[in-house]
Amino acid sequence: MKPTIFKAFVFATALSSFTIIAQNTPTKLSNTYLEKVIKDNSSYLNQGKVADYIPELAKANSQAISVCVLGPKGVIYKAGDYKEKFTVQSISKLIALMIAVEDWGEEKVFERVGYYGTSLAFNEFAHLETMPTPLNPMMNAGALVTTAMIKGEGDEGYQRILERIRYITNNNTIKINQAVYLSEKETGHRNRGMFHLLKNKELIDKDEEALNNYFKQCSIEIDTEDLAKIAYFFANECTRFDGDNKYKNSSISELLLSQMLTAGMYDYSGAYSRKIGIPSKSGVGGGIIAADPKTGYGIAVFSPALDSHGNSLIGSKILEDLSNKLGISLFKK
Amino acid sequence: MKPTIFKAFVFATALSSFTIIAQNTPTKLSNTYLEKVIKDNSSYLNQGKVADYIPELAKANSQAISVCVLGPKGVIYKAGDYKEKFTVQSISKLIALMIAVEDWGEEKVFERVGYYGTSLAFNEFAHLETMPTPLNPMMNAGALVTTAMIKGEGDEGYQRILERIRYITNNNTIKINQAVYLSEKETGHRNRGMFHLLKNKELIDKDEEALNNYFKQCSIEIDTEDLAKIAYFFANECTRFDGDNKYKNSSISELLLSQMLTAGMYDYSGAYSRKIGIPSKSGVGGGIIAADPKTGYGIAVFSPALDSHGNSLIGSKILEDLSNKLGISLFKK
Amino acid sequence: MKPTIFKAFVFATALSSFTIIAQNTPTKLSNTYLEKVIKDNSSYLNQGKVADYIPELAKANSQAISVCVLGPKGVIYKAGDYKEKFTVQSISKLIALMIAVEDWGEEKVFERVGYYGTSLAFNEFAHLETMPTPLNPMMNAGALVTTAMIKGEGDEGYQRILERIRYITNNNTIKINQAVYLSEKETGHRNRGMFHLLKNKELIDKDEEALNNYFKQCSIEIDTEDLAKIAYFFANECTRFDGDNKYKNSSISELLLSQMLTAGMYDYSGAYSRKIGIPSKSGVGGGIIAADPKTGYGIAVFSPALDSHGNSLIGSKILEDLSNKLGISLFKK
Amino acid sequence: MKPTIFKAFVFATALSSFTIIAQNTPTKLSNTYLEKVIKDNSSYLNQGKVADYIPELAKANSQAISVCVLGPKGVIYKAGDYKEKFTVQSISKLIALMIAVEDWGEEKVFERVGYYGTSLAFNEFAHLETMPTPLNPMMNAGALVTTAMIKGEGDEGYQRILERIRYITNNNTIKINQAVYLSEKETGHRNRGMFHLLKNKELIDKDEEALNNYFKQCSIEIDTEDLAKIAYFFANECTRFDGDNKYKNSSISELLLSQMLTAGMYDYSGAYSRKIGIPSKSGVGGGIIAADPKTGYGIAVFSPALDSHGNSLIGSKILEDLSNKLGISLFKK
Repeated sequence: MKPTIFKAFVFATALSSFTIIAQNTPTKLSNTYLEKVIKDNSSYLNQGKVADYIPELAKANSQAISVCVLGPKGVIYKAGDYKEKFTVQSISKLIALMIAVEDWGEEKVFERVGYYGTSLAFNEFAHLETMPTPLNPMMNAGALVTTAMIKGEGDEGYQRILERIRYITNNNTIKINQAVYLSEKETGHRNRGMFHLLKNKELIDKDEEALNNYFKQCSIEIDTEDLAKIAYFFANECTRFDGDNKYKNSSISELLLSQMLTAGMYDYSGAYSRKIGIPSKSGVGGGIIAADPKTGYGIAVFSPALDSHGNSLIGSKILEDLSNKLGISLFKK
Repeated sequence: MKPTIFKAFVFATALSSFTIIAQNTPTKLSNTYLEKVIKDNSSYLNQGKVADYIPELAKANSQAISVCVLGPKGVIYKAGDYKEKFTVQSISKLIALMIAVEDWGEEKVFERVGYYGTSLAFNEFAHLETMPTPLNPMMNAGALVTTAMIKGEGDEGYQRILERIRYITNNNTIKINQAVYLSEKETGHRNRGMFHLLKNKELIDKDEEALNNYFKQCSIEIDTEDLAKIAYFFANECTRFDGDNKYKNSSISELLLSQMLTAGMYDYSGAYSRKIGIPSKSGVGGGIIAADPKTGYGIAVFSPALDSHGNSLIGSKILEDLSNKLGISLFKK
Repeated sequence: MKPTIFKAFVFATALSSFTIIAQNTPTKLSNTYLEKVIKDNSSYLNQGKVADYIPELAKANSQAISVCVLGPKGVIYKAGDYKEKFTVQSISKLIALMIAVEDWGEEKVFERVGYYGTSLAFNEFAHLETMPTPLNPMMNAGALVTTAMIKGEGDEGYQRILERIRYITNNNTIKINQAVYLSEKETGHRNRGMFHLLKNKELIDKDEEALNNYFKQCSIEIDTEDLAKIAYFFANECTRFDGDNKYKNSSISELLLSQMLTAGMYDYSGAYSRKIGIPSKSGVGGGIIAADPKTGYGIAVFSPALDSHGNSLIGSKILEDLSNKLGISLFKK
Repeated sequence: MKPTIFKAFVFATALSSFTIIAQNTPTKLSNTYLEKVIKDNSSYLNQGKVADYIPELAKANSQAISVCVLGPKGVIYKAGDYKEKFTVQSISKLIALMIAVEDWGEEKVFERVGYYGTSLAFNEFAHLETMPTPLNPMMNAGALVTTAMIKGEGDEGYQRILERIRYITNNNTIKINQAVYLSEKETGHRNRGMFHLLKNKELIDKDEEALNNYFKQCSIEIDTEDLAKIAYFFANECTRFDGDNKYKNSSISELLLSQMLTAGMYDYSGAYSRKIGIPSKSGVGGGIIAADPKTGYGIAVFSPALDSHGNSLIGSKILEDLSNKLGISLFKK
């Protein structure tokens, strides 16, 4: 196939068009290519640090690296330790926000949390002194609010999040890592402190069950392929990778994608936006999802060693390579 | 198929495709349509407040409203008081950043300023106590740094900015509003305070001439059509509206667009990103530019009454309508 | 020489010596005089506001005013509703600090809390983000630390505080107001939040029993005369009003008095220091103690309506009058 | 006994009484004793650091140590390098505050500056973002305000400060160190920044002449004995060491002494208050004055190597020894 012909063909199908527009030299996504990207970035392995503020997290396999790309029509590419399981951690904040908005409407939810980007750390609490609400639902303080807003008694908030993740991934085997949950509950003094400060601000009405739900949602265990399906879901107006559109909702996907770009990588979001430019959300378990609404691709990476912002260090590096090579930054023409 | 022909074809389809994708009922952009949008939003006129911290700005015609949309191949639509002149104010920060990056490279510039989004006001200085650099080049503190980094003695920094704006608009009649400049210089105690704090942090090496350059760049007078040409320039990899590509540079446009989305509307950027989703930059003179890299459209609005964040209140409203009706948010599929 | 005669003699000399130095026109302290001071200040009754963030506190008799002055050798003057009972609240922080220092030594205690004055509110938590320890043991955050440092399991920390207050006042009928305690425990979200943030900073090692101890110590019920005995105790090197010197310790009294002057009236301490100049400590129950080491007088006032700093509004006014008229500010020659 | 005779008696006994009360073993102040205190503390010489943020200050003789104690009736003790000259720096803030209060009354002055103690550094500016005024007139921000409030055109504010210092010390040879002044003016970017932020807050009405006056007052050159006379002046209701009472004013001395205790040693004031307990004011030139209203003693120390708070390190140590040995903390009974 000659380049010009290939170009014309690809234009007609949105799928590869992004590679052509971006690069002129088309990159063919393949498992081999993803393996190369992993290899290219594996030298960073020793620069990050596995989260150890939750003792159970410190047990993660710090050498693991994986990447999975899921495109329209079920196209999937994967490489590395993609069968390795890990906890979703803050990536669950997207699901909690989604359900809270379904329960209350976006306006009511954002009376209790802001839309702000920030230069502050993911677990900052000082702003609760000066601001009427947490800055955004991607940082811990805001996520405590959205989780507590999910309707339901006791652990129902958590069960609804778990159920939604199982739906999105179409994987009913997904469940909590009980050891991680108990470890978070035992040592999560900072989150517990914020939880009560938020009660003091009358932004949370529930008791500590709601805090437990937060710890539980963070402790849901998943693999990289599951994660790519979550990324795909938000890249495609909340349509499932297999086309099921029970939850299709472009307003929610736009909300989530804009929050991912604004705050999904915490205080690194601004720099990430410039370097990678794809709406993304990280978790301290080492996962990152990147959801590209332009092409509909959902990308997931995993590597538990974190940078100083609490994001997977190699995960960001791999996404930077993918973004540059595929030309899928939102800011590229 | 020769490249140029192929491009023409793509342009022809891309343009309508975004309207179709977005709405199912395609909206035809037209002067009439823009007039309607202005009319729809004119009821907000009394809710904003013309900036009065600079006395000369308080003299602006608070009733003026205009909008101008400039698309590929010179397509242009405009409505309202688009011949009204006003000062660019903070929109000039984009030009200053562009030239500073040309002079020093992005890395050197961002050693002195951050990439951060924020919940802080455009003229906040307290973060200079705790952070090594200003948060981003869109807020005043960061813009003082980038302007001071532009190479050249005396008012050369300013002259280079003026010259670049004249180039981008292809309009050599553009010049400073001397009364606004003198008013800003006379009353700009807060900017002057920050300027010296930045010298104290060794982020600015120059003397008060560099501060004057900042006041001067803000005082450059322009109309809505000129502004749309600036928006177009950044939406199109720094290619001029007439196709001239002397400064073409996709790296710089990506940097600027990502900063516009992250911080261009100050502490309103996160909410703006969710509601409008187009990289934008406002000025307290009442102008806003919105640059859409997906479609290559450059949009400019003008209405001097500001909201509490320092952004044109009606300007934001008009852009929200345009974004929704045309479906050009970056977060829309 | 019979005690009563001796007392009268000592009073006559002690009293006039300090008044003469201060004023040249000696003021004779008497019950009548105190009644006049109360009357003079009763017009402020409607300017303050009874604490209502703890529901049970809102039930206080907002009209009550009392004052009690206890001098060397048992001289005592009192006026107003001095039999009215109220909870000590933050005045208990002095006792907790005293016992923590006895248990660990001052140096160890002040590794976990600072000596700082402040412009911040009594219940501020944002400084826990940026400072290694709470600012001082007079604000809530610091007091949570000192209470938790008191050695003992379960409620022993509280029991030791209660026992010490009973000792100082020689009043074994003093006990907790259970309704206030339960109300504080139920609604003290902010203190609970800080407690867990302090655990997160590894400044508190204990579980929520220690927080309950804090709520309990605040809920100890007392009257104005008891309070004057506490003031006397600290004004006299931890010697009891009846001369018992079991706990005599000038180092601890100097520590407490310096902390009272620096931070005992929270962010009002600096202004209070200028206007009144006597080491003092307030509680949101409406009590204030003032301990003057120069003359050895202990003063207590009570009036539950608070000013914006959380101090008894009329209490401060009465103390200002007493300080001025008796000339007992530490800053007077 | 007639009042005047009584006073005389009290005065005569007061002097030795404080040593007796404090120590049981009375300490006889003497030059020899002061020499011993210097020697005892000289080992700290290498722990401090001469201020170098103003280049001219870095030239100070870092080995110099001196102490001077001036008591009632002209009693004077001195030791060490008491003829060494140095600039008063922030000690001049007391004089500026005094004159501003004379010009406007205390109430008007404290509408533009607070009475607060603090945990913040002497040159902190972030609080100007959140607080209506600088925290107190002892920190740089507040002192810029008080100096600018002194009535007079051009350098008159400075001239009045110089004149007052010459009066208090009865030493007309005192003058500015021009090299230090020019160095401060050249490099004082942080103070210049705050000056303009204060203009922005409308707390300063004057132009940069007032800032120059601040730099000039800091550059007044003095020796330890002069400094002890300033300390004496404030310890004795603004009466001069030789009994001249042209400016006698107990309200002003009480204001100044309370501010010295609250904020005179910056963020070290709380700890200093506990350890030393004498109203004091330091300058980055290495001087500290301590004024004891109880005994009427004025103490000055000098040693240019500073601790992390910007106070003379050995100066504080010497004052701690003197306070402990003489028992003159305000918090001692």
